[in-house]
Amino acid sequence: MNPTIIMRTAIFSLTLAALPLFAQTNQPPAVEDFKPSTLNQPGKQYPQVNSERRVRARVVAAQAKSVMLDIGGVKYPLAKGEDGAWVGESRPQDEGFHYYQLVIDGAQVPDPGSLYFYGASRWGSGVEVPAADRDFYALKNVPHGQLRQTLFYSKSCNTNLQCFVYTPPDYETEPSKRYPVLFLQHGGGEDDTGWGNQGHAGLILDNLIAEGKAKPFIIVMANSYVPGSSYAFGRPSTNQPGASNSSSRGVTGPGGRRFDFSAFERVMTNDLIPFVDASFRTLPDQAHRAMAGLSMGGMQTRQIAMANLDKFSHIGIFSGGSISPTQLADMADFKQKVKVVFVSYGSREKGAAGKADIESLRKAGVNAVFYESPNTAHEWLSWRRSLCQFAPLLFQD
Amino acid sequence: MNPTIIMRTAIFSLTLAALPLFAQTNQPPAVEDFKPSTLNQPGKQYPQVNSERRVRARVVAAQAKSVMLDIGGVKYPLAKGEDGAWVGESRPQDEGFHYYQLVIDGAQVPDPGSLYFYGASRWGSGVEVPAADRDFYALKNVPHGQLRQTLFYSKSCNTNLQCFVYTPPDYETEPSKRYPVLFLQHGGGEDDTGWGNQGHAGLILDNLIAEGKAKPFIIVMANSYVPGSSYAFGRPSTNQPGASNSSSRGVTGPGGRRFDFSAFERVMTNDLIPFVDASFRTLPDQAHRAMAGLSMGGMQTRQIAMANLDKFSHIGIFSGGSISPTQLADMADFKQKVKVVFVSYGSREKGAAGKADIESLRKAGVNAVFYESPNTAHEWLSWRRSLCQFAPLLFQD
Repeated sequence: MNPTIIMRTAIFSLTLAALPLFAQTNQPPAVEDFKPSTLNQPGKQYPQVNSERRVRARVVAAQAKSVMLDIGGVKYPLAKGEDGAWVGESRPQDEGFHYYQLVIDGAQVPDPGSLYFYGASRWGSGVEVPAADRDFYALKNVPHGQLRQTLFYSKSCNTNLQCFVYTPPDYETEPSKRYPVLFLQHGGGEDDTGWGNQGHAGLILDNLIAEGKAKPFIIVMANSYVPGSSYAFGRPSTNQPGASNSSSRGVTGPGGRRFDFSAFERVMTNDLIPFVDASFRTLPDQAHRAMAGLSMGGMQTRQIAMANLDKFSHIGIFSGGSISPTQLADMADFKQKVKVVFVSYGSREKGAAGKADIESLRKAGVNAVFYESPNTAHEWLSWRRSLCQFAPLLFQD
Repeated sequence: MNPTIIMRTAIFSLTLAALPLFAQTNQPPAVEDFKPSTLNQPGKQYPQVNSERRVRARVVAAQAKSVMLDIGGVKYPLAKGEDGAWVGESRPQDEGFHYYQLVIDGAQVPDPGSLYFYGASRWGSGVEVPAADRDFYALKNVPHGQLRQTLFYSKSCNTNLQCFVYTPPDYETEPSKRYPVLFLQHGGGEDDTGWGNQGHAGLILDNLIAEGKAKPFIIVMANSYVPGSSYAFGRPSTNQPGASNSSSRGVTGPGGRRFDFSAFERVMTNDLIPFVDASFRTLPDQAHRAMAGLSMGGMQTRQIAMANLDKFSHIGIFSGGSISPTQLADMADFKQKVKVVFVSYGSREKGAAGKADIESLRKAGVNAVFYESPNTAHEWLSWRRSLCQFAPLLFQD
């Protein structure tokens, strides 16, 4: 594994480091009320999830010696039945979305039963443990927006880049209406498909808008692994990971590493924002532009929005740090420009510092909001809920 | 495997039936100029393709006893190296896109190196053998349209269904312009993602429009496996496969089987066309509406367009049969209503009957065009080329 991938896996695995590599095999018998995961491929019966929130995998591998379910950083051995199929269960998982894979005689492969999602720096399997509050991202018979796969030319990178753009339900029926824009970033090892696929961003907004809880706005989801990123993989990187320490701009991440997001910042400010304002019916000003992100995307939000307060008025950081009053050179200027600061964590993460920062910002007169997602860790249910809490705060002026 | 899947696999495997299940192992040594497939996951080095158009797979499976590359209906054994990785090559493949999988100790799984595509009734691996004429679907620095993931409510099915909609490059910049619409269908075992992902429909149109070779139009790509389909899988089917024989409407497919597409026809005519005309800036009349499809989608086009000539004026059938003058009850009416009939096949398919039908239609005064894709079979390069030939014929009045 090369150093850049190790670095990025470190971010992604933040909350998994303390877990053992292999599960204990003496789990109690599972409650037999398993149902197919809602993220299975059409017609596929496995993986399944039961009321204890255990995940049961099943795969036919007649000649295999060893098959394991690898989920949440833990490997669970499957047992072979007389039909040649290997079956086994995980321990109870948190509610929500989980990346996982199968390990068949040493080969790490996707489960042929699941749909595939980009995370952990690969396209791989995902399973959904039904959440008690899943109604907020359910597909309902309400007006739906569109999720648009969009190409734009980046002068900074001299190439075409891709982003996804959510347009709200009335975008096509109100041809003269203009909309605010949220730039919403994925986490480390993920890409521009994450918020639409794993995050259900479109369904969350459709439902909030239908209930009158959020104003209609456009969401732009770009891939932050642009050419030239010091944290890039899969494309030639002009900077090596260590080189970012000498940058004047950066964010300190887990383990004290510094991340330099300046290549993506150039794409955002020089290419993407102008493209979006030219190609969609936006309200193209600071008052109607927000940025948010999860994990590494939150770190990017902090760096890029804070350095461009003439462009962004609403800031959201989900499981990606916070903003302390001590970091603000000019509090009066910040308060004048920034309408909302939102910081969130899953309850199983270490969010106390973020909560204290938000409290300090509030005392200083900033419109700052802290949210803690109940019984979740560094995972997508925390971020779906964060978006659902953040969206109603946007563009209320 | 249940009967509906067997039936559908039969369509998909039409041209593969004559091939042996296992490859001969005495292939000559491969030319060592392998390059990563353009459809690999970011940063993944395998699969690779060489100048002979062989596909080389590599997967780490340290404890496996047997690993095979399964492509084009043929299984090629891989050999284990000292590093625990299994490596091996296929015979030369046709240029273009191919579905494939790995078989690891009997487990049929996706290759963790490739991107995934929906075909053969599953999400699985795809590999691209560079075609000499690949420029027509290359990503270029031209104005790009958008591919929109769109939900619509189907009264016929009492549920939300999904389709993808391509809007041409000037759709956002010409807010008062209205556009013709092509309804473009996937094949058996595929879905509404096929034309955008495997087919590169958006890039093909972007390039044709930029060169002035095609008029800008909207493309609607729906999933024809709607609830209630007699050829459905993965959802409860109200009809069994045999039941469609008693239908008054249907298409005879390979092996003399009849396919009843009436559930999808109801969705198309009652739900999808009205939704598209209400939600996009269409020219909502027969003169500006086309239907085309590949393989099973061609069969659907024949059934649905022919039964609704008040709604469609342009018909395209790619590797999915043809239209014979003997099938037309009223030739004068057909000629008056239908502006273009287009039929195509890959040169390795049996397209002679289609060519003869088109010749007969031409003699009868129909604007009918036949196209044969050189050196391809029942596969995506045939259909990419077919779209590229068909699009310039559309909406020329």
